Amino acid sequence: MALDWLETIAQHRVFDLAHPLEPAMPVSPNHPGYRMALVRRHGDIVRSDGGSAANEMIVLGGHTGTHLDALAHVSHDGLLYGGVDAARAQRGGRFQCLGIDEVEPIFARGVLLDVPRFRGVDVLPAAEPIGADELRRVAHAQGVDLPRGGAVLIRSGWAHHWSDPHTYLGHTSGVPGPDASAAEWIAAAQPRVTGHDSMAYEHLPPGAGHAVLPAHRVLLVEHGVHIIENLDLERLAAQQMYEFLFVCLPLKFVGATGSPVRPIAVAP
Amino acid sequence: MALDWLETIAQHRVFDLAHPLEPAMPVSPNHPGYRMALVRRHGDIVRSDGGSAANEMIVLGGHTGTHLDALAHVSHDGLLYGGVDAARAQRGGRFQCLGIDEVEPIFARGVLLDVPRFRGVDVLPAAEPIGADELRRVAHAQGVDLPRGGAVLIRSGWAHHWSDPHTYLGHTSGVPGPDASAAEWIAAAQPRVTGHDSMAYEHLPPGAGHAVLPAHRVLLVEHGVHIIENLDLERLAAQQMYEFLFVCLPLKFVGATGSPVRPIAVAP
Amino acid sequence: MALDWLETIAQHRVFDLAHPLEPAMPVSPNHPGYRMALVRRHGDIVRSDGGSAANEMIVLGGHTGTHLDALAHVSHDGLLYGGVDAARAQRGGRFQCLGIDEVEPIFARGVLLDVPRFRGVDVLPAAEPIGADELRRVAHAQGVDLPRGGAVLIRSGWAHHWSDPHTYLGHTSGVPGPDASAAEWIAAAQPRVTGHDSMAYEHLPPGAGHAVLPAHRVLLVEHGVHIIENLDLERLAAQQMYEFLFVCLPLKFVGATGSPVRPIAVAP
Amino acid sequence: MALDWLETIAQHRVFDLAHPLEPAMPVSPNHPGYRMALVRRHGDIVRSDGGSAANEMIVLGGHTGTHLDALAHVSHDGLLYGGVDAARAQRGGRFQCLGIDEVEPIFARGVLLDVPRFRGVDVLPAAEPIGADELRRVAHAQGVDLPRGGAVLIRSGWAHHWSDPHTYLGHTSGVPGPDASAAEWIAAAQPRVTGHDSMAYEHLPPGAGHAVLPAHRVLLVEHGVHIIENLDLERLAAQQMYEFLFVCLPLKFVGATGSPVRPIAVAP
Repeated sequence: MALDWLETIAQHRVFDLAHPLEPAMPVSPNHPGYRMALVRRHGDIVRSDGGSAANEMIVLGGHTGTHLDALAHVSHDGLLYGGVDAARAQRGGRFQCLGIDEVEPIFARGVLLDVPRFRGVDVLPAAEPIGADELRRVAHAQGVDLPRGGAVLIRSGWAHHWSDPHTYLGHTSGVPGPDASAAEWIAAAQPRVTGHDSMAYEHLPPGAGHAVLPAHRVLLVEHGVHIIENLDLERLAAQQMYEFLFVCLPLKFVGATGSPVRPIAVAP
Repeated sequence: MALDWLETIAQHRVFDLAHPLEPAMPVSPNHPGYRMALVRRHGDIVRSDGGSAANEMIVLGGHTGTHLDALAHVSHDGLLYGGVDAARAQRGGRFQCLGIDEVEPIFARGVLLDVPRFRGVDVLPAAEPIGADELRRVAHAQGVDLPRGGAVLIRSGWAHHWSDPHTYLGHTSGVPGPDASAAEWIAAAQPRVTGHDSMAYEHLPPGAGHAVLPAHRVLLVEHGVHIIENLDLERLAAQQMYEFLFVCLPLKFVGATGSPVRPIAVAP
Repeated sequence: MALDWLETIAQHRVFDLAHPLEPAMPVSPNHPGYRMALVRRHGDIVRSDGGSAANEMIVLGGHTGTHLDALAHVSHDGLLYGGVDAARAQRGGRFQCLGIDEVEPIFARGVLLDVPRFRGVDVLPAAEPIGADELRRVAHAQGVDLPRGGAVLIRSGWAHHWSDPHTYLGHTSGVPGPDASAAEWIAAAQPRVTGHDSMAYEHLPPGAGHAVLPAHRVLLVEHGVHIIENLDLERLAAQQMYEFLFVCLPLKFVGATGSPVRPIAVAP
Repeated sequence: MALDWLETIAQHRVFDLAHPLEPAMPVSPNHPGYRMALVRRHGDIVRSDGGSAANEMIVLGGHTGTHLDALAHVSHDGLLYGGVDAARAQRGGRFQCLGIDEVEPIFARGVLLDVPRFRGVDVLPAAEPIGADELRRVAHAQGVDLPRGGAVLIRSGWAHHWSDPHTYLGHTSGVPGPDASAAEWIAAAQPRVTGHDSMAYEHLPPGAGHAVLPAHRVLLVEHGVHIIENLDLERLAAQQMYEFLFVCLPLKFVGATGSPVRPIAVAP
């Protein structure tokens, strides 16, 4: 006696947009590495009925793997989004406001803007900026508009390098990504979140590292738009799936600035 | 130009079924405690343009807070689900199969069976078993059937005690929960997952602790049904929302036995 | 052809003054719990010659178990020892000065003041203050004076309760320990370090918790004397060993405020 | 009224043989990285009297930085030192025997064998083996014999590369160190411990990594001699201090395979 809408939507295809979490994955040097160790293994303790359990201890950062940035993550001139004083918000060792625990579940319309497909290449070159003009043309070519209150995912194809942390992080070669004009254009559409398939979301020129992060300033600080980094958009792009239900459910680490996530795109 | 189905579903109500993650929450003594510490705070390093970032280090278990059990979590007589040899699967320090990283996103029909409402109480008493017969009558009274491939959520109201870890864990007093007959009845419906609002999912008699965990054996080992523990079903129950879209997206910790999750229920 | 002094001293008795580190031990709620998990076990990976290795991941606080406080640990009115501005010293997320990494190895004369023996009891009662007058009389009775540049260890016998964390922490009942007058008297002797066999070093009245910590202020902030907590002085006291070589070698966690230690007392 | 021997020895020089612990230091990829984060900073919570405290959470491996190997660390053909069954000893997730918590404080005669000085160079070349014959000649030239029950420290000068983790780890170039003959010669003298100034203690040929670790087998498994890795012997060597009191106090992590240490050498 299931409801019709439920019957229908439960048949939709689900695209997993997250990378697996393992020690060898790329990690920004500013953040703790990822480690999982089994505390107990099967056989360590066996219950009277033959049952046994295994479990683990995990160490990670809030910005490990595919993850979402809370608004508390970045400040500008001492202020967080909405003019909140950063020093005051972080007093006590966890953010009193704008932390990841305040992010409501994201369950909204999402669009993918596939830049390399628009250009006819597999992956954008290192250090290639993605500007507002190009994104506008990609959206037009794909026939999508940006979803107010939803999710805007920008693909560079950089996830191809995920298994090669040195290239992926691109400290010397740079990394492709949205520049300030792109961030402004996205923010103007008032989505809740925007994501990219690189570590920093940002366009990084060669050798400059994270000297400045203009897209973070525009999106997080000025417009309150969350950022998702390290997306895996490859399967979604292969299916030319440009519009979908986007679901992202960050863990509520009280007072933290980010959370690993496993976003999905859902479509008929 | 958004698609109709997307316009519609994006308007649905979203119920957050997870507790916040903080050090004071209940933790089973078999599992590592939860801790978050800010590695960097705003002002620690300020970029040339006035930007600054905060981030954290987090320590937790795979079975911290609201979480999902992978099939690798429990064995019986040395075997995991499907007859997999547990000792072999765990060799190397991470599960080669049946780990949390193999759990596909859960996006399916879900039902809530609200036992205390059926009984006309707020919360079940400590150490109260929930049997198959009662669940059958609850389902009938609510007019729902169990969703094959979906989610079966059983409410005891025990989440009322979440902020009082001693009572919630119930080492001396016991904890209400599904007994073996309930687990068999749920498993027979072939859902992908079943969840409860207590630490162990199981009915725990007073003073017995986790001596044996029959529902884990039936569900995880014999039928391959995932278990979610520490759900917060209060808001969902208050709305008498018994049928919904259930979404649960465990993190892909490679080779681990569980993951904190933030499940949601979605309904018009 | 070993040197004479070496031959002699290497025959001395060595008293281990540290508790073992395990998850069940007492931990102050302000500090992270202790956990150790084996990352690899023997057999996980076997080298071509039959060799295999096991290793672990450990999570702890700088103030876990028997530990030494760096001068960076406590401030008063915003200032650390020597008038160092605490806010400035901690900027960057690790102490630029007065951290545990600046503590030179401690290899010096030490004395034990055994208060319960002086009183003719096994253990001091909960919430019992130890004042300067009594310590002066204990020292006189034992025939020791305080070692300038050395170590002053005060015994209450509270280590008897180590295996019972509830009693040991004494949140409701209080804990015996040196009061402000004792701290002043010890500081006047200019030792490098003073230690005690409780979690806080301080006298804690019933139900007051760590409302104020006067001995920390006097010792760490005003006089630059390090504090060791959670010593196990039982074997030393049983031998009535009141004067000895004291060795304590804190780990150099750069910029941290404390380190677990395993101090020893050495005597003929 | 201090004792004479105490007055004398407390004047001796103390040489610190440990590297500082910080995230940028070399870490073997088999082991967890090191991280320290301040949980609380001064000002987060201020007591009524103006007092405030800072503390931290630390993640590390038992084999982080300068550290000592317990006998549980390495097995050969499934057996630990003394024929102990490795699988049985590690059941439960912590070693029931031969763990680091069983290592008594080391307070004994120590000698330094300075190989590069004997050769007239600053640092041995990468991938250079140190054999028993050469060590015998070094000991003779220096006029020391090996201390039964004591410590034998072998210097290659490799600590010069500590601040350059790529070179220090030497995955491609190899690392100098004692070969199997050296380990046999050292073990025959029955010291309690032997140490070296590299990550693996062992001679590592170019590109071979840790394919086999013969010195670990000889020392830990066959003779029960502990190994210290990543020593900083530079100051000791600069003073040509070849015989000394050696003190090393591993933390008692119950059931673990190693501990960071801060060994010292003490001499008039």
